[in-house]
Amino acid sequence: MNCDFNKLVSSIVDSYSELPEFLPNRAIIIEIIDILRRLIFPGYFEKEITEIAHIDYHVGSLLSEVQSKLQHQICRALLHDTTITGKCGEDAEQRSIKITNEFLSRIPKLRKILLTDVDATLDGDPAARNRHEIIFAYPGIFAICVYRLAHELFSLGVPMIPRIMTEYAHSITGIDIHPGAVIGHHFFIDHGTGVVIGETTEIGNYVKIYQGVTLGALSTRGGQSLQGKKRHPTLEDYVTVYSATSIFGGETVIGRGAVIGSNAFITSSVAPGTRVSIKTPEHKYMQLNTNPD
Amino acid sequence: MNCDFNKLVSSIVDSYSELPEFLPNRAIIIEIIDILRRLIFPGYFEKEITEIAHIDYHVGSLLSEVQSKLQHQICRALLHDTTITGKCGEDAEQRSIKITNEFLSRIPKLRKILLTDVDATLDGDPAARNRHEIIFAYPGIFAICVYRLAHELFSLGVPMIPRIMTEYAHSITGIDIHPGAVIGHHFFIDHGTGVVIGETTEIGNYVKIYQGVTLGALSTRGGQSLQGKKRHPTLEDYVTVYSATSIFGGETVIGRGAVIGSNAFITSSVAPGTRVSIKTPEHKYMQLNTNPD
Amino acid sequence: MNCDFNKLVSSIVDSYSELPEFLPNRAIIIEIIDILRRLIFPGYFEKEITEIAHIDYHVGSLLSEVQSKLQHQICRALLHDTTITGKCGEDAEQRSIKITNEFLSRIPKLRKILLTDVDATLDGDPAARNRHEIIFAYPGIFAICVYRLAHELFSLGVPMIPRIMTEYAHSITGIDIHPGAVIGHHFFIDHGTGVVIGETTEIGNYVKIYQGVTLGALSTRGGQSLQGKKRHPTLEDYVTVYSATSIFGGETVIGRGAVIGSNAFITSSVAPGTRVSIKTPEHKYMQLNTNPD
Amino acid sequence: MNCDFNKLVSSIVDSYSELPEFLPNRAIIIEIIDILRRLIFPGYFEKEITEIAHIDYHVGSLLSEVQSKLQHQICRALLHDTTITGKCGEDAEQRSIKITNEFLSRIPKLRKILLTDVDATLDGDPAARNRHEIIFAYPGIFAICVYRLAHELFSLGVPMIPRIMTEYAHSITGIDIHPGAVIGHHFFIDHGTGVVIGETTEIGNYVKIYQGVTLGALSTRGGQSLQGKKRHPTLEDYVTVYSATSIFGGETVIGRGAVIGSNAFITSSVAPGTRVSIKTPEHKYMQLNTNPD
Amino acid sequence: MNCDFNKLVSSIVDSYSELPEFLPNRAIIIEIIDILRRLIFPGYFEKEITEIAHIDYHVGSLLSEVQSKLQHQICRALLHDTTITGKCGEDAEQRSIKITNEFLSRIPKLRKILLTDVDATLDGDPAARNRHEIIFAYPGIFAICVYRLAHELFSLGVPMIPRIMTEYAHSITGIDIHPGAVIGHHFFIDHGTGVVIGETTEIGNYVKIYQGVTLGALSTRGGQSLQGKKRHPTLEDYVTVYSATSIFGGETVIGRGAVIGSNAFITSSVAPGTRVSIKTPEHKYMQLNTNPD
Amino acid sequence: MNCDFNKLVSSIVDSYSELPEFLPNRAIIIEIIDILRRLIFPGYFEKEITEIAHIDYHVGSLLSEVQSKLQHQICRALLHDTTITGKCGEDAEQRSIKITNEFLSRIPKLRKILLTDVDATLDGDPAARNRHEIIFAYPGIFAICVYRLAHELFSLGVPMIPRIMTEYAHSITGIDIHPGAVIGHHFFIDHGTGVVIGETTEIGNYVKIYQGVTLGALSTRGGQSLQGKKRHPTLEDYVTVYSATSIFGGETVIGRGAVIGSNAFITSSVAPGTRVSIKTPEHKYMQLNTNPD
Repeated sequence: MNCDFNKLVSSIVDSYSELPEFLPNRAIIIEIIDILRRLIFPGYFEKEITEIAHIDYHVGSLLSEVQSKLQHQICRALLHDTTITGKCGEDAEQRSIKITNEFLSRIPKLRKILLTDVDATLDGDPAARNRHEIIFAYPGIFAICVYRLAHELFSLGVPMIPRIMTEYAHSITGIDIHPGAVIGHHFFIDHGTGVVIGETTEIGNYVKIYQGVTLGALSTRGGQSLQGKKRHPTLEDYVTVYSATSIFGGETVIGRGAVIGSNAFITSSVAPGTRVSIKTPEHKYMQLNTNPD
Repeated sequence: MNCDFNKLVSSIVDSYSELPEFLPNRAIIIEIIDILRRLIFPGYFEKEITEIAHIDYHVGSLLSEVQSKLQHQICRALLHDTTITGKCGEDAEQRSIKITNEFLSRIPKLRKILLTDVDATLDGDPAARNRHEIIFAYPGIFAICVYRLAHELFSLGVPMIPRIMTEYAHSITGIDIHPGAVIGHHFFIDHGTGVVIGETTEIGNYVKIYQGVTLGALSTRGGQSLQGKKRHPTLEDYVTVYSATSIFGGETVIGRGAVIGSNAFITSSVAPGTRVSIKTPEHKYMQLNTNPD
Repeated sequence: MNCDFNKLVSSIVDSYSELPEFLPNRAIIIEIIDILRRLIFPGYFEKEITEIAHIDYHVGSLLSEVQSKLQHQICRALLHDTTITGKCGEDAEQRSIKITNEFLSRIPKLRKILLTDVDATLDGDPAARNRHEIIFAYPGIFAICVYRLAHELFSLGVPMIPRIMTEYAHSITGIDIHPGAVIGHHFFIDHGTGVVIGETTEIGNYVKIYQGVTLGALSTRGGQSLQGKKRHPTLEDYVTVYSATSIFGGETVIGRGAVIGSNAFITSSVAPGTRVSIKTPEHKYMQLNTNPD
Repeated sequence: MNCDFNKLVSSIVDSYSELPEFLPNRAIIIEIIDILRRLIFPGYFEKEITEIAHIDYHVGSLLSEVQSKLQHQICRALLHDTTITGKCGEDAEQRSIKITNEFLSRIPKLRKILLTDVDATLDGDPAARNRHEIIFAYPGIFAICVYRLAHELFSLGVPMIPRIMTEYAHSITGIDIHPGAVIGHHFFIDHGTGVVIGETTEIGNYVKIYQGVTLGALSTRGGQSLQGKKRHPTLEDYVTVYSATSIFGGETVIGRGAVIGSNAFITSSVAPGTRVSIKTPEHKYMQLNTNPD
Repeated sequence: MNCDFNKLVSSIVDSYSELPEFLPNRAIIIEIIDILRRLIFPGYFEKEITEIAHIDYHVGSLLSEVQSKLQHQICRALLHDTTITGKCGEDAEQRSIKITNEFLSRIPKLRKILLTDVDATLDGDPAARNRHEIIFAYPGIFAICVYRLAHELFSLGVPMIPRIMTEYAHSITGIDIHPGAVIGHHFFIDHGTGVVIGETTEIGNYVKIYQGVTLGALSTRGGQSLQGKKRHPTLEDYVTVYSATSIFGGETVIGRGAVIGSNAFITSSVAPGTRVSIKTPEHKYMQLNTNPD
Repeated sequence: MNCDFNKLVSSIVDSYSELPEFLPNRAIIIEIIDILRRLIFPGYFEKEITEIAHIDYHVGSLLSEVQSKLQHQICRALLHDTTITGKCGEDAEQRSIKITNEFLSRIPKLRKILLTDVDATLDGDPAARNRHEIIFAYPGIFAICVYRLAHELFSLGVPMIPRIMTEYAHSITGIDIHPGAVIGHHFFIDHGTGVVIGETTEIGNYVKIYQGVTLGALSTRGGQSLQGKKRHPTLEDYVTVYSATSIFGGETVIGRGAVIGSNAFITSSVAPGTRVSIKTPEHKYMQLNTNPD
């Protein structure tokens, strides 16, 4: 067996081309998300039960920790990007410091927007008892929170990390929001499993989305050549999209206040204030002969 | 930088209104779920490989641990609720003891019902090899198990914890069952990702649900004013609902033995024994010119 | 209380029939997946940041660890199967060694196929920046990787473990691929939440599947009697299936190069090169009177 | 470098003769000590703060855990011994079960003796506030507890494990008691660092020993040929030995009630009721000229 | 076996008198020591490598954590003490808050004194390379640091915790300093294994102690009746005591600047400036006949 | 309280002078020791029970891990040293690589010498059952092993790390060997608690040392000015030193084959083949009047 084992090792090693360099570390990115969430919603996600005291030191300490970890990961991601693209402009260390500080300075603004998302959830879900329950347990709030953080990094030109962040939220919630999407305030996703929001989607304020909704591209047959083109729809303010509906296409605009029912498949624009519904017609109902028992 | 850093800390701290008090601890609630599952399905989820010996001491020890942890978390949840609602009836400590003991006394009954769910899964899925595989690996059983536990706590008036429990199962399985729903025995969810069962849903015995099924509310525009109203459908005994179908509305009743096909969108009642199917008509098929290669 | 407590313990213990024996250990199976993934994609999922050096020793050491752990788990699974089925052919220890070695020898081939899946993802998704991002963050690649590993074990006759593996990937990604399915190279699943691929599905090369797609059985009313029968569809080379579409039935064949649009429900075969689309018709749009503000 | 690295690996591997087989696992033996201590002194060393409830289930569960772990380690130790000695009498599995059960049945008796050791400590040390502090914090009690457990295993013929146990206590406390020593009740070791009690030592009841005391062999020049001979002293009831004193020799008997002062070096017997003291004589004192400032 | 097992459980349980209540938790006390050490010597004992930034938030956050943990443990220790002594003066919660705050306010002073101990070590040990090495690696500094912390708690009337703290340092370093001892600044313990400093010892400034030195009580035969009496010696400023020497008795005073050589046994006072030496006389040397080869 | 708290934080922060930079990390140094020990004694200290297979990959993988970790820590230690000494010769990165490789190349030689130490232990201790027990449980072997590793790093000019290593062994075993000491083969330390071997000690081959032996400096009053001078004794081949004996002075030479009895205090040279013994004379024995009962 030993001889075979050695051969097997060789055949695996030989199949490797070259190893990736300077990859960011997924486990640390998850820690970063965790710290940022504790900064934004203090008291909900502490490891130990004790109430937080001396809140300013608590915040300063978390902020200091996340600053150091995030800067290090961004630096790796920039270096990694350089090994791929060959571009090598400003020094990665300096750029990662600048980006990190700019990012952290946006936290208070992000926090304000996220509180509007909590409000929208309370308004939108009769099953929600209070804001605490929403922050604590609603997957929609978790996914939106991670998206909003990742989007800032994305817009600051950080490679790879934003996507790792949103894919982490995706694995926890089943909600897949690309960090490139642009989303207004008072955003509410209910239940959320199966929601997909593509890279070039634009979403206004006060929008509601239910589980299984796809905001996607009409065709990706063009592959990498489509990179950067607007391929996903636009939803104006006050739009509601019910469960399992797919809306496709970069030129598709769902107008202000429109309501799209469940299980619809939309590939062209919908005028403001329109209600779209594809209730299954009753002539589809047939009497069954089979006895369930 | 240090000056900016201090300012940033202050601006974050200043944005906090008041910190939540007496929140239950999510990590401990997950431990509680884990212990309860080990009580209900002994031998499947032990951390170490060794077979269980002296089963009565094993059970007594787990039960004692869960009693202490659960009582403590319920007490916190009741106190937290008091800080919000202002209501402050019976003493939280005493109430949490009573509720915990009542809850634990229901475990044998819950276990009996869960075994019917395992039976229903074995009957319903030709891919299932045996009960062990189902208990071990089927997400539907995990989600139903957590739901049944959470539902008992919900019906005993425990705030917040039941929702944290079912949202934990949701994050693992993609199956979102509100702890307020009422569900009969021999319940089978296959695959399950994307299933949503709303707070006021009622489900009879021997019901089968596939992935992507929503049992939802017609509209939540009324928001918090709708709290407590029946907003979600009723499924009578022996109903089957296939994948990606949405059924909405508190007055919608799917009659005994009805079978609802995939991708349907139902907002009105369906008579007992009816089969509803929305097979995509063949005139939707068009010859493509594009060559895939 | 103590008396009641004792009674409660007894009533739980009495309700147990017999405890399962020789169950494999889920936590170790997850470790096995983790090691195999590090063998297949070296450098992405290491716990510490340091770059890998002396790659052949690294690979040999991981391979040795996984050989020992996997063999032990397979041995337990075979013994467990014996306790259920009563069949007791070749000795479990010997069989588990044979199976493990055969499985490990297939890793280089699996790695080659998985690299075609990464290529297909890069080709298919304009939002993908490069192969590194895909390996690191795409849930589709994770689910396909686990499926391909589990499928080899399944085809070598290992009970229970393949299913535990794919259900683990299911819980992380929302993508549920039965280890019995047969899938060609260059397979691409985008987003993936809610995808279900049943046990007897056959999928060709260069196939694309989007989120929420079910490849399922028409009816499972036959239950265990259907075991082994082809119940799930066949997708020929170059087929694309868009989001939230359900395709059912063991005799349903989607011909080479066909494209099935979103939200379709297909229960009969589709000729090669056909495009199926169920765009929601515009007469379903109604002007709303409600004012969203 | 890589070539040198390979050579280095080879030269290390080549230097190995044969790898040991069936070694017991030190980490698990430490766990076993921990569980036994929790059985003997309930409530002091629990990981979580909550008070113990339902003590019988708690005890039964710990006992069941330690039974399984200990039996497994004893079995390995017996098998390992067989690989060395070539003796292979009774089956290791059966013997390890018998030994484990016999050992566990002695716990109540051990507990009773250990409580006399706690009493002796309280009587002997004015700095001790109460029994709780002694159990919690006194290294002497820890070392004696581990010794008493290890001694039972030693006397039941278990190889290697007793020594690993007492060496663990040695590393924590600086007290080195060979598991072969025979020690009566009401034994008190104060401070304890540097205490050595050799394999064939015999100690009566109500004996007190202070830090740095050696009960050793006169000469070990005979090496392995001395194995089994009485090489260490005998201390009768009510003997006290103060700090840093060495007592050597298998024929040395310290008679009942004798008191040996600090820093003595004894190699012959001391009659009952004798006080031995080697106070440094005052003519050893010399005026210093050096000024400390 | 099962019947015997039940009997064994019962016999163990029956042997328990009553379980201790409100014991402090040793693991948390060790955490408290760790945090205090990081406050006193910042940068040496951080878990991760990154340099500390924003030192004020770092300090404030550690201080806040230790405040909460320490207060909780002190409260338990006071309550536990009440269950033993029956005394129940001021409310434990209030007292523990007062004590904790008073203790924390003494940290800057403790830090200043500890830096003199570091200086004394650098002065006293030619093998010491610099202050960093001393703080990092010298067991004497660790033991003195823990003693100084524990002594403050002891002098504030905290039961049990100070002793748990110094016994923890004892287990790590082999240096056993009772928290009741009074020790001046510039204290240096070299090597330290086996050092014992009793409860009523008084030590001046600039004192040096080597390994194996005991500062003990002449006799403890009086047991608990001696509690509170001065039983241990006094060492004035600038005293040096070399290795393995024992100094006993509450009335024994080692005068300013005295130097006590190794292996001495002192039970009466030594005048200031005296040098005591018990060099083994050369007539003890005998020619050996044995040939070592 | 908050105001006082802020003041307290400030007073602590203000008391810091400057934070240390580039300190090596103690936890990682302990990991390095652990890996090196697993390389030297394969199979004894693995975390999991499974027997080692494919030993060459196992060794290569451990060696690769330790190479990376050690080089990183040495680099930090060199940089840290630069911040103190101001010397800044060869580049730290390059030097740390050279040193690490040189160190690793010495492992086979170190292993050979360590096996002679195991042999000496088996020869010297009748209580030792076999080599396995010695490697597994003897603190002397652990301390010598760590010393031998640290000594190589010390002789290669690595600052701080060798001392952290031997102090770690000191805390576990109570044996304090300075990494600068020079020690021959077949070295045996029995029991070992309290052994101190100073920086400039020289020890020949086949030497035996018992617990509590100090090989120390006559006076350290010269402090840092003595750095580099020979201050500790020389022990020639075949010397034995029994327990609690102190030997002092850089010019003290214990000649070949000499045997020094327990509790001696030696400050001048001892001729080869001499036996030194300070048995407590029998006229020190006095009849006691006290009755122990």
